Amino acid sequence: MNFFDVLDLLGTIAFATSGALTAINKKFDPFGVFIVAFVTALGGGTLRDVLIGRAPVGWMLETYYVYTILATVVITIIFRKQIKFLTKSMFLFDTIGLGIFTIIGTQLGVESHFNPIISIALGTMTAAFGGVIRDILCNQIPVIFRKEIYATAAIIGSITFLILNMFKLDININYAITTSIVIIIRLIAVRFHLSLPTFYTKN
Amino acid sequence: MNFFDVLDLLGTIAFATSGALTAINKKFDPFGVFIVAFVTALGGGTLRDVLIGRAPVGWMLETYYVYTILATVVITIIFRKQIKFLTKSMFLFDTIGLGIFTIIGTQLGVESHFNPIISIALGTMTAAFGGVIRDILCNQIPVIFRKEIYATAAIIGSITFLILNMFKLDININYAITTSIVIIIRLIAVRFHLSLPTFYTKN
Amino acid sequence: MNFFDVLDLLGTIAFATSGALTAINKKFDPFGVFIVAFVTALGGGTLRDVLIGRAPVGWMLETYYVYTILATVVITIIFRKQIKFLTKSMFLFDTIGLGIFTIIGTQLGVESHFNPIISIALGTMTAAFGGVIRDILCNQIPVIFRKEIYATAAIIGSITFLILNMFKLDININYAITTSIVIIIRLIAVRFHLSLPTFYTKN
Repeated sequence: MNFFDVLDLLGTIAFATSGALTAINKKFDPFGVFIVAFVTALGGGTLRDVLIGRAPVGWMLETYYVYTILATVVITIIFRKQIKFLTKSMFLFDTIGLGIFTIIGTQLGVESHFNPIISIALGTMTAAFGGVIRDILCNQIPVIFRKEIYATAAIIGSITFLILNMFKLDININYAITTSIVIIIRLIAVRFHLSLPTFYTKN
Repeated sequence: MNFFDVLDLLGTIAFATSGALTAINKKFDPFGVFIVAFVTALGGGTLRDVLIGRAPVGWMLETYYVYTILATVVITIIFRKQIKFLTKSMFLFDTIGLGIFTIIGTQLGVESHFNPIISIALGTMTAAFGGVIRDILCNQIPVIFRKEIYATAAIIGSITFLILNMFKLDININYAITTSIVIIIRLIAVRFHLSLPTFYTKN
Repeated sequence: MNFFDVLDLLGTIAFATSGALTAINKKFDPFGVFIVAFVTALGGGTLRDVLIGRAPVGWMLETYYVYTILATVVITIIFRKQIKFLTKSMFLFDTIGLGIFTIIGTQLGVESHFNPIISIALGTMTAAFGGVIRDILCNQIPVIFRKEIYATAAIIGSITFLILNMFKLDININYAITTSIVIIIRLIAVRFHLSLPTFYTKN
């Protein structure tokens, strides 16, 4: 298990925790909490695998993901009151997850020889669509369609990864740089309340 | 067509009827009623097939499922007033469906040599996720995330199936026992209003 | 690029525009607008590809779809005020899309040697399910489950295509006739406010 596997696991735990907390707040039972935690963490990668025809999907073969999420859910339920005071650490984990998952998805697109724009789509999907499915299950409009810079950070990181990859930059250095870019953009966006404009106009 | 195919068909009809009634209550038109009945009955198995890479998905090859659901929808629409008084029979059918579909899904996981925890996931998915997709289409929070013991019955039945299978119990006897377990747990849960705890706490 | 590719592109643009406008009205940011436009245009075909096991799904290999939708979204955002006055042209494009996508999906089913009822399902899915996913993402009940004749027009066109195909009618003539049938049914339905009955009854 190398450095990036560790980060991948951290991202999974962070996303699962954020999903579990959302479900607890919606008064879901333990089964519901587990399912929401699961789709938040693995929903984006699962959708990606289905669309590119990678079946069985990843977590069916690498079952340690399932156990990781099970353990995360149990711990989140037990320490739910304390975790609420950990929102800063939670946010940091979620941001790390966003960075890591973006590059994992993009890299998979490159390896599979997809067109660059598809690789960017795969990276963004891996990182951001677990949250979309979580919101659909919780019957609310996906927050990333309206929130501060989130998917946008993923897209920029993904593009940067492709450009550096074109220049044959060492893959590990590329991983480190582009993951950091996603994380930094997201941190700056939240710190300064940056968000994309919307275009709604009354008549 | 053996005994279990008959039960499978009964489960399909029961789930389709429950989906059709939900859609009628939401004032859907006949097309909407059919689609909701269809996903309630076959949505879980379809999701399972997609995730394990079994394509085309089952009902595209065994089209009698489609005709069964079409007939069920027509009959449900015609007798919708009478069926409302049949909620007990309906509930029984739905419970039979839950039991059968759980074991069908789990068995498919075993045959495909998945890790036991994935087989349990496949069983639960086959039985319980049609209802999740139905609720999403009807724009409501999936009821099984908050209701009395439902998915939990499926999980317990699925685990029992795997254990008995490990001891090389005859598959037909195993089917009969574990399907019954799911059904009995569900009946007891509803009779005594048992449900899993939730963890929501105000600050 | 032949005549039908042009119509296919027109349909994609029409669906993408209608999706983008919906998202703008929901106050989504540009990323959200793009995603909703994308799923409205390509969601039906993507679901179809996944269910029949055609992976990677179509738009991952033919990336001009992605660029077309990107351009459509940019133009829609820029001219959003003017486009509101174009509802008639918009409706016409959407109807053309419905006709074209229905026959494309049905034809794919025929080529893949599916049972006729599955080909009809594939045609209807290709044409009408992008709108269903759009509505789910926007947290509203899918409008085609309750609206004037929409999916019904697709089903009738699809059946007609299969019948004419059985009689070995030239495929291009068949395309032209059945696409027109879908379009004409839809136009008549909207002109005369025709809709399917619903069956809801208070007790």
